[in-house]
Amino acid sequence: MKDKCGVVGVCFKDNLKKASYSIYYSLLSLQHRGQESTGIVTRKKNGFFSEKGMGLVNEIFTFDSLDSLDGNAGIGHVRYSTMGASQIENAQPFVVRHSSGTLAIGHNGNIVNAEELRHALKASGSIFVSTSDTEIIAHLIIREHLKGKDFVESIAEVMKKLVGSYSLVILTDNAIYAVRDPLGIRPLVLGNLEGRGYIVASETVALDVVGAKYVRNVKPGEILEIDNYCSLNSHRVIRLPKKAYCMFEYVYFARPDSVLNDIPVYKVRERIGEFIGLNDDIEADIVSPIPDSAIPSALGYSRASKIPYRETLIRNRYVGRTFILPEQEARELAVKLKLNPIAGEVKGKKIVLFDDSIVRGTTSSRIIGLLKGAGAKEVHMRVGCPPIKSRCNLGINMPTNEELIANNKTVEEMREEIGADSLKYLSIESLIEAIGMEDRNLCTGCLTGKYPIDISKYEQVKLPVYMKK
Amino acid sequence: MKDKCGVVGVCFKDNLKKASYSIYYSLLSLQHRGQESTGIVTRKKNGFFSEKGMGLVNEIFTFDSLDSLDGNAGIGHVRYSTMGASQIENAQPFVVRHSSGTLAIGHNGNIVNAEELRHALKASGSIFVSTSDTEIIAHLIIREHLKGKDFVESIAEVMKKLVGSYSLVILTDNAIYAVRDPLGIRPLVLGNLEGRGYIVASETVALDVVGAKYVRNVKPGEILEIDNYCSLNSHRVIRLPKKAYCMFEYVYFARPDSVLNDIPVYKVRERIGEFIGLNDDIEADIVSPIPDSAIPSALGYSRASKIPYRETLIRNRYVGRTFILPEQEARELAVKLKLNPIAGEVKGKKIVLFDDSIVRGTTSSRIIGLLKGAGAKEVHMRVGCPPIKSRCNLGINMPTNEELIANNKTVEEMREEIGADSLKYLSIESLIEAIGMEDRNLCTGCLTGKYPIDISKYEQVKLPVYMKK
Amino acid sequence: MKDKCGVVGVCFKDNLKKASYSIYYSLLSLQHRGQESTGIVTRKKNGFFSEKGMGLVNEIFTFDSLDSLDGNAGIGHVRYSTMGASQIENAQPFVVRHSSGTLAIGHNGNIVNAEELRHALKASGSIFVSTSDTEIIAHLIIREHLKGKDFVESIAEVMKKLVGSYSLVILTDNAIYAVRDPLGIRPLVLGNLEGRGYIVASETVALDVVGAKYVRNVKPGEILEIDNYCSLNSHRVIRLPKKAYCMFEYVYFARPDSVLNDIPVYKVRERIGEFIGLNDDIEADIVSPIPDSAIPSALGYSRASKIPYRETLIRNRYVGRTFILPEQEARELAVKLKLNPIAGEVKGKKIVLFDDSIVRGTTSSRIIGLLKGAGAKEVHMRVGCPPIKSRCNLGINMPTNEELIANNKTVEEMREEIGADSLKYLSIESLIEAIGMEDRNLCTGCLTGKYPIDISKYEQVKLPVYMKK
Amino acid sequence: MKDKCGVVGVCFKDNLKKASYSIYYSLLSLQHRGQESTGIVTRKKNGFFSEKGMGLVNEIFTFDSLDSLDGNAGIGHVRYSTMGASQIENAQPFVVRHSSGTLAIGHNGNIVNAEELRHALKASGSIFVSTSDTEIIAHLIIREHLKGKDFVESIAEVMKKLVGSYSLVILTDNAIYAVRDPLGIRPLVLGNLEGRGYIVASETVALDVVGAKYVRNVKPGEILEIDNYCSLNSHRVIRLPKKAYCMFEYVYFARPDSVLNDIPVYKVRERIGEFIGLNDDIEADIVSPIPDSAIPSALGYSRASKIPYRETLIRNRYVGRTFILPEQEARELAVKLKLNPIAGEVKGKKIVLFDDSIVRGTTSSRIIGLLKGAGAKEVHMRVGCPPIKSRCNLGINMPTNEELIANNKTVEEMREEIGADSLKYLSIESLIEAIGMEDRNLCTGCLTGKYPIDISKYEQVKLPVYMKK
Repeated sequence: MKDKCGVVGVCFKDNLKKASYSIYYSLLSLQHRGQESTGIVTRKKNGFFSEKGMGLVNEIFTFDSLDSLDGNAGIGHVRYSTMGASQIENAQPFVVRHSSGTLAIGHNGNIVNAEELRHALKASGSIFVSTSDTEIIAHLIIREHLKGKDFVESIAEVMKKLVGSYSLVILTDNAIYAVRDPLGIRPLVLGNLEGRGYIVASETVALDVVGAKYVRNVKPGEILEIDNYCSLNSHRVIRLPKKAYCMFEYVYFARPDSVLNDIPVYKVRERIGEFIGLNDDIEADIVSPIPDSAIPSALGYSRASKIPYRETLIRNRYVGRTFILPEQEARELAVKLKLNPIAGEVKGKKIVLFDDSIVRGTTSSRIIGLLKGAGAKEVHMRVGCPPIKSRCNLGINMPTNEELIANNKTVEEMREEIGADSLKYLSIESLIEAIGMEDRNLCTGCLTGKYPIDISKYEQVKLPVYMKK
Repeated sequence: MKDKCGVVGVCFKDNLKKASYSIYYSLLSLQHRGQESTGIVTRKKNGFFSEKGMGLVNEIFTFDSLDSLDGNAGIGHVRYSTMGASQIENAQPFVVRHSSGTLAIGHNGNIVNAEELRHALKASGSIFVSTSDTEIIAHLIIREHLKGKDFVESIAEVMKKLVGSYSLVILTDNAIYAVRDPLGIRPLVLGNLEGRGYIVASETVALDVVGAKYVRNVKPGEILEIDNYCSLNSHRVIRLPKKAYCMFEYVYFARPDSVLNDIPVYKVRERIGEFIGLNDDIEADIVSPIPDSAIPSALGYSRASKIPYRETLIRNRYVGRTFILPEQEARELAVKLKLNPIAGEVKGKKIVLFDDSIVRGTTSSRIIGLLKGAGAKEVHMRVGCPPIKSRCNLGINMPTNEELIANNKTVEEMREEIGADSLKYLSIESLIEAIGMEDRNLCTGCLTGKYPIDISKYEQVKLPVYMKK
Repeated sequence: MKDKCGVVGVCFKDNLKKASYSIYYSLLSLQHRGQESTGIVTRKKNGFFSEKGMGLVNEIFTFDSLDSLDGNAGIGHVRYSTMGASQIENAQPFVVRHSSGTLAIGHNGNIVNAEELRHALKASGSIFVSTSDTEIIAHLIIREHLKGKDFVESIAEVMKKLVGSYSLVILTDNAIYAVRDPLGIRPLVLGNLEGRGYIVASETVALDVVGAKYVRNVKPGEILEIDNYCSLNSHRVIRLPKKAYCMFEYVYFARPDSVLNDIPVYKVRERIGEFIGLNDDIEADIVSPIPDSAIPSALGYSRASKIPYRETLIRNRYVGRTFILPEQEARELAVKLKLNPIAGEVKGKKIVLFDDSIVRGTTSSRIIGLLKGAGAKEVHMRVGCPPIKSRCNLGINMPTNEELIANNKTVEEMREEIGADSLKYLSIESLIEAIGMEDRNLCTGCLTGKYPIDISKYEQVKLPVYMKK
Repeated sequence: MKDKCGVVGVCFKDNLKKASYSIYYSLLSLQHRGQESTGIVTRKKNGFFSEKGMGLVNEIFTFDSLDSLDGNAGIGHVRYSTMGASQIENAQPFVVRHSSGTLAIGHNGNIVNAEELRHALKASGSIFVSTSDTEIIAHLIIREHLKGKDFVESIAEVMKKLVGSYSLVILTDNAIYAVRDPLGIRPLVLGNLEGRGYIVASETVALDVVGAKYVRNVKPGEILEIDNYCSLNSHRVIRLPKKAYCMFEYVYFARPDSVLNDIPVYKVRERIGEFIGLNDDIEADIVSPIPDSAIPSALGYSRASKIPYRETLIRNRYVGRTFILPEQEARELAVKLKLNPIAGEVKGKKIVLFDDSIVRGTTSSRIIGLLKGAGAKEVHMRVGCPPIKSRCNLGINMPTNEELIANNKTVEEMREEIGADSLKYLSIESLIEAIGMEDRNLCTGCLTGKYPIDISKYEQVKLPVYMKK
């Protein structure tokens, strides 16, 4: 089960202050990380409270449900949307009762050796009610805990067994634990609720919305413990000489107003545009983004290239996840309902069209078709993310390698397929420069096929259908 | 978790015939055994299909969901309704994936040593996602199976460990297993689908509705195996010199058109009335039942006593589980909305009012009030079930001993409290005679406090709120 | 639009007491008169409040909605269920704003000259948003009111124009009006809320549930005015030498615990059974009803014939309006899911089976099949309602004449078609005697084809699909 | 009832082609014009089909409902959202049956003399089921039609009586009529479905989405008739020497990719920014829009002023109409959840913040607070719409004059209240220039208090609560 998710954990010092509301607002701000299901689990002295459901944060929780989620500590989760594989059983946080209490886990990432671990657990008597990696992690932690270890020791032991990416929030009877894999693949940050408590979350936007001050990253290989008195304890369990921060979070996935690993996402996206723009000798009338994700890069490109920035496509804010499409007309309509060209801005223009990334190429092809249909003279595609050639196995939902347009085509072949007049990608080197990290600290596996973890050694689960919104 | 439930399992020889529809119809006929949640799990060669939900059978399943529940074999479950303790996690059948496949279980009954077993399992590393006994049984079976035993051997081993009542339907990759506890406390029957397959179910009414012929009881201590080719194999694992068939199934719980342990429920209820009527020297104008459950007994009483049978209370068929009651007027209205006296039949009459049983006495009190308010001259209460003095721990949902009116009151005190002009109960001896079994084969624990199992030895789970409809 | 409905109106003297709750409880008790849609409209000094919806009373109203239906006076309505013709636009009460205020109407009955009136209204400029007769009545009343008449005068004028059956509750800015057609075809009664106000309703059961005392019938041709101070004013507008009380209300439609036109329904149904039983020379082991409606008649038959009364069919209380039926198995299952024979009571028996009425004969045929399948030796059908030969046009939902089995078949032919060993109907004369009214005061149009109103003169609306539950 | 709405009408030549799907897609593209309720009415030879509901287009219609909306011609409607006044009775299209058939109307606009017309209609016997102007129009048309006029003549006659703004789509048994008020206040355009039929709609974006070619505006005072064979007939009923196109459609309400009265909205918004930017001598580091509506103007401003364009606020795309806010924290959170400043882009910056318009000033105040909280050195507010001083009575939903910040404050007072370092509005003259029309053809009533219609003469309906999203 591939997980593209967002997590949050909140603890207030004041016993009477309910964590549920702050978790709810944070989840609203992390909704872009997963729209399939959501859940909140809170803990009071005398028990755990849980509410989960299939749908958006706004659809699942009500005043009544937030109010009944009692307790000053809790965790929350949003999970991404796929066809078919979605089940209420896989909704998180995952809650289990064990020998000495209750444990709830929310997970963002993908465990590469999940099948091995699951087989081993099954072989020693464990049974599974979901298909998620999270249940495996719960089993492993409880097994260690049973040996007499405390939770920090137990989690530390499990971290040695887990191969893959994971940012975890764990709620026990006595603490919240925020855990990040040794390579730091998926993000996780700590915030201070103005002295009234702490929050951990996938992105800094979740801190902003509840008025929390950003403290720092949860470090790769760290277990951050927030006990019942809201005291912080850091346990740096594993220390590797390098990191593997996911470059795709910067390029597309994270919100532009987030700061990841102390680097503002917005700045990276601007620089991506600038770096392409600086070296681009194309003659064009305007540069225009595919909204919304490519806007900062297109603005950066414009400044570097001196080609004026213009909007040419308007997104319909009301057409969301689903609408009705009769088979025969579906293909074109799906894009048209979401994006409409501004005819007056397009007609007769040579346009540099900026997109954050190209995955299968079908959407690019249709958007270029829309612009040409509206009278564009030329459409020159510029792409912020270097060619994606290899499916991610560390927590980003992607189609199979066969479906990735860059996997078996040259840039020229791609240009032809999408119908652009020219096509340029940012180079991997420039991307790394735009992010501003050392090469060795970034995971660029989907671009290079070289993953920070030797994925080939592990049995791969059948991955779910890819969906890009 | 106390379970008052109904189970069904269906297997068709024809691979292409879907079991889901027959399970659905059977569950409709077992709806009286549980209205909180329901579920169906089916199995095809290549996988398991599951649909569960909180609500009535009619509310949860649709044409689409039944159609997508593919496969020629499957099991179904209805679960009873309580306030608060109801959770989707506890809905059954419970489905788990284990080392060599998938296992689904539906359970009717109550495991007395559940807490001991759960503690032991937790102590050896098991984790729990629900609060139901069923998850314990799943863990135990899989543990035995892991030791290399086949499922019959595994279930047999688990039966030695389980103390309490259980009628189980179990669906594995290769078979359906119908299992009944060694005392046969809860019912379970086998039916033949006119040569096209088999059905097992809690009551014979589930056979009637799908046109199955009743074959026999699943025997106490038996594992009945229905393999993928619809071959039957019986494994009589435990053979005890006595049974403990629940007398309350005859008195109130089972449907009157069911045949339990080869004894028609309807006949028992008639005889209950006859036995009271034969020895009753009351002078009355009419005998009348509290509909619907007391009708056969009131008819029997009438025949024996020669007091004419008349209806005096009409039940509103549309007022079901819930309606809105503002606090101040709630008490009287709740009964009035459900039962209305026929004034013309009541006025000036001396009435023998027959009820199947008295639990807390509050409903009896209000109904007698209704009849007196409508002009009844006298109301003589006759009760088919001897005084209930001790809460059931073997699968019938009852209030605490403190709330049981017969627990700490004499018959005369009870008569006064409910406002009857006289009050008579059937004796335990007559009840046993009415059922027509040997004393030693019946569980009368709730009447005598003497249970077939030494309950006092076991830690008792906190029981859920009692609700009688 | 044929209307089979229930109406209620409530006025409290106390301005602060909300009428909505009492209307809600009354509608629950009238639910058998219509299950398609329901609505409540209340009035406070400063405005009207309305809530309507498709579904059962219990499904549509919530605590919140009842609470927001403010005001000490109001009316309510339940409407019957058909396939297809059901629309929210036809849900009642029907609310309109007119020249001097607001008017809400709830209607039970059928206006025979509806099409003529509608055409005339349209021809003079009226427009219609629904297909119900009620909108016609609203138009007519307002037109009279506009001429300067007060509402009593206006309604009186309209009564002269309406041909057909109607029991109306009308809510205006200043009063509630209860109106009954000059022939009194559909029932309407007045109750006293223990001095705190008044209630009018289709049946006395609606009075019982809110603790109101029955005062009297609303008289045929009467307008009963309940003003804002809860003063009663009677206006006997039309006085005919005869009535046309619907005999089918007694036979089947009204609740058995209701008193219609001062005659208890239950008594009528008992007598119906007695009258058949007295003259029946059949040799049988038992007499048994098709539950629930035929129970009182079967009891009466038993007493008269000395044939013992026994239950043989158990009704599933949970199978209500809808369930899923795959085409191929539908026919038999539909009956089986609702009624199950008690095999032990049926086998080898000669049974007199009592039903309230036979409409199309298909259900009778299937039930007889069920009993014979369960081993009945003979099934002798006895029917409380004389042969129904002509579709009702005055407010009872019936199939077309072609579908009525008695329309074109002799009793012997019907007996053969339904598979009974013998078949006897109550005679029309005996039915009239059982009801206990003079012949000329009863409408027996569906039995004789002779209606109290010359229906043939009027254009008939296309009638909706008939559904008997 | 004030209506802020969108309308569409579609007719296909091919009898078998369903209009419902194209209407649905068009409504999706017009969703910004109304989110409260929506409806589609279609017409086939033998009847009308209707589906309406409270909610978004995407929430109300399903495959099944679109499929059951049969017929090659139909109209659709979206209606805006207010608290309280929303009722299903007011959902459109409004459908009525009249003397010679059926009529359905969808309306965008506001009838100023509605109360007079309604009173007159009521006085002559009309009754009303809704509180919408549309029902008045239906009555008026039918009255004329009854006099023997055809529908064009009837509508023409009604247009003489209506005072106010209206763009109508009318569906009759034989045609679709698109009607626009003589001043052309609300937009309405005609499109050609590639020779297969015609579409009329509020904005050109509705044409784009179904692949229709823009033909022309429906002219002020024109009735455009599309008969059953898809023949077009134009009837220019009223010809005034001036128009009163709503300037607020250009400034805020219409979609930026629409072309209104042959003027592209996007261009107008760019020029608005340019005109302010040209004359602005402020020293600032960046100019930034409040997304999404102010983006084109901010871009225009940047080009004219040479101040660099930057994004500083990110909108949460998942926080839509409703979310849960506990009272105490509500005020700040409401804005924070929707807009988040990008700290790195804001800190230490002098920012020109561009908004499309200021209505009550509260949102501006909170956004400026957010930016200053994120470290902005200065925030200079620039506003595309001149000060709004007088509530619109011609179809735009606005708060009362008392709530309009510009109604009783100088620009300096407003600057202080919203906490800006400077505040500049576009002048009315520049706005007119930016739109590019002659002064006399624009309605600027909300800016000047001088309406194209003498509103003071008419009784004003109580207006619903204003809500700006």
